[in-house]
Amino acid sequence: MQPNFLDLMPALAFDLLKTDDRSAARAGKITTDHGLIETPIFMPVGTIGSVKAVSQQQLKSEVDPHIILGNTYHLYLRPGMQTLEAAGGLHNFMNWDRPILTDSGGFQVFSLSGNRKINEEGVMFQSHIDGSRHLFTPEKVMDIERIIGADIMMAFDECPPANSEYKYALDSMNLTHRWLDRCFTHFNGTQDRYGHTQNLFPIVQGAVFHDLRKASCEYVSSKNATGNAIGGLSVGEPEPVMYEICQLCCESLPTEKPRYLMGVGTPWNILECIALGIDMFDCVMPTRNGRNAMLFTTKGVINIDNKKWEQDFSPIDDGLDSEFSHYYSKAYVRHLFKAGELLGLTIASVQNLAFYLWLVKEARKHILAGDFLSWKEEMIPILKTRL
Amino acid sequence: MQPNFLDLMPALAFDLLKTDDRSAARAGKITTDHGLIETPIFMPVGTIGSVKAVSQQQLKSEVDPHIILGNTYHLYLRPGMQTLEAAGGLHNFMNWDRPILTDSGGFQVFSLSGNRKINEEGVMFQSHIDGSRHLFTPEKVMDIERIIGADIMMAFDECPPANSEYKYALDSMNLTHRWLDRCFTHFNGTQDRYGHTQNLFPIVQGAVFHDLRKASCEYVSSKNATGNAIGGLSVGEPEPVMYEICQLCCESLPTEKPRYLMGVGTPWNILECIALGIDMFDCVMPTRNGRNAMLFTTKGVINIDNKKWEQDFSPIDDGLDSEFSHYYSKAYVRHLFKAGELLGLTIASVQNLAFYLWLVKEARKHILAGDFLSWKEEMIPILKTRL
Repeated sequence: MQPNFLDLMPALAFDLLKTDDRSAARAGKITTDHGLIETPIFMPVGTIGSVKAVSQQQLKSEVDPHIILGNTYHLYLRPGMQTLEAAGGLHNFMNWDRPILTDSGGFQVFSLSGNRKINEEGVMFQSHIDGSRHLFTPEKVMDIERIIGADIMMAFDECPPANSEYKYALDSMNLTHRWLDRCFTHFNGTQDRYGHTQNLFPIVQGAVFHDLRKASCEYVSSKNATGNAIGGLSVGEPEPVMYEICQLCCESLPTEKPRYLMGVGTPWNILECIALGIDMFDCVMPTRNGRNAMLFTTKGVINIDNKKWEQDFSPIDDGLDSEFSHYYSKAYVRHLFKAGELLGLTIASVQNLAFYLWLVKEARKHILAGDFLSWKEEMIPILKTRL
Repeated sequence: MQPNFLDLMPALAFDLLKTDDRSAARAGKITTDHGLIETPIFMPVGTIGSVKAVSQQQLKSEVDPHIILGNTYHLYLRPGMQTLEAAGGLHNFMNWDRPILTDSGGFQVFSLSGNRKINEEGVMFQSHIDGSRHLFTPEKVMDIERIIGADIMMAFDECPPANSEYKYALDSMNLTHRWLDRCFTHFNGTQDRYGHTQNLFPIVQGAVFHDLRKASCEYVSSKNATGNAIGGLSVGEPEPVMYEICQLCCESLPTEKPRYLMGVGTPWNILECIALGIDMFDCVMPTRNGRNAMLFTTKGVINIDNKKWEQDFSPIDDGLDSEFSHYYSKAYVRHLFKAGELLGLTIASVQNLAFYLWLVKEARKHILAGDFLSWKEEMIPILKTRL
């Protein structure tokens, strides 16, 4: 095991403001050099330097996320490191002055690229765009995330398939842990870029096996990072298993650090996992499902393609503060989808992101007010309603 | 010829504020029930109830057009008359409280639909969407535009092909004139919808033949409408011919009514035609070319796909007031196009529309200041510059 240089790492501050009496839900506040993040938080996914179909202006005025996410794999391929470095990092490049978190590219390497080969050194893979060959190692990924300039960088991990056998999951977890050491060593041996503090979060793996998850939580916790993430969930396992593993991890990870559940999930997943002690979420669901005509609203889920909305001139969602939710009617948005108008994709994406942010902000209010659990139980059937 | 019921038509007011000493350029003001239109004006095309890729919020805050255009043919097919009538018209449906002008559908029937058959009654055509058969007559088109609720409705005309022979152009013009009588008769026999005044503008045709254009101008002028339009230009004829016909029409149409040149054109076309006495323009060029990576800027034309912009982090256009033009860099917009991100289409459309509106507003300022012609001569080489 490598020496622990963590004392050198400039700290991201996490203030735990309140823990719910009747669940493990927490309300907190993360301080970064690009501003505050009130937790629990949902982070819109800005895959390739853009939250799909949403302008930075709309993101701020309609959605108001405290932090967004960028995908290392995508940004590495396009626009590439030379352009991002010349721009002074992703904040400058996309003109976004709030915090940015980058994943490690691991998930995309395993899900998108062809012909990947994993060994101790790292992963050799082919670009899904042009088939060109690239090597990601823990050190290289740290360099890439440094250049992107993320406020929160994620460690490079292997993401085992959802249905992995125990032996594969064990070996994979151990590889992820050895890569984690190399990530921290390289991270601690390199400088923050662009004058703001960069943080490195390690990722718990271990598939659906309790002993592996527990061991991984211990290993990850020993890094004493400023925050910890749980990976490899919502990758095909049944929902109860996801909740069970999430609970186990929350109980094993330190209380005084933010906990980030990667790539989850539906609105009800998010409330359930907040109840288990998760502070940070990201998911492509609001934007991707939005582009496929599914609207999340405070009254339930709408398939806006459906003929029943053809002459429903009521606002998309009068339960949200977002201007879009009041300004555009269901009938109008349905028409835009039917006519193939790009504005439909934008309105649906904005609505869904505004809804996700509303949901976590409401959760936070109720945690602080002390009635989170009863509010959650009321909300979940509404969230699952098909309108 | 039908009796002239125009005395019954509620008037749209046109105040001619200034005519240039050294050209036929004019600055004016049109008053409608949905607000003022300062002329010369460019009208963004909101084809199917949406200016493509641009939200109503962006349209107001970034582009600030005094009026937009809707396409009767497209709106008739989708969302259809039942939905538009139930919505209380297009203003309500798309939530747009400024003036709307609708074309008559004639141009689209001739350019998009299959199997069209023209006779005295009207045009039988097949939808380009599902092949269904429809009949447009002057009376039906008036009813449709009434239901859409346009502030300015256009008469139903035949648009002859660009290279029409004299005989075809003559017969077509005469048919258009007979249809014009029927349009006015039906328009005057029907009521304004939704509580605001609707106006009907006739359209001059006659292809590239001076005597036909002159005769058509006289016929159109005799209608004593609140405004007059010139159709059938920029359909493939050489630029000098377009200018020549435009000048002839401007000289033949009344001075005290706004003159609308339909479907024109490039930025330099617009300045040249303002100099000839045109007050109103529309064109899909800013949005369509924008979606194809062409940016119009105050410094010239940019193909944002080009590698030369890869690391140009300067704003798209620092000569415009639009926030987008300053907020997003050339390198970022190029990246969005390369990565296929929808935001690229939005930024390009907003930039180009903001530029077109800037151009006509600058023209107006210079007409009022008395130096329009020298400004135009300076601008045209800049507008044609390929950066």
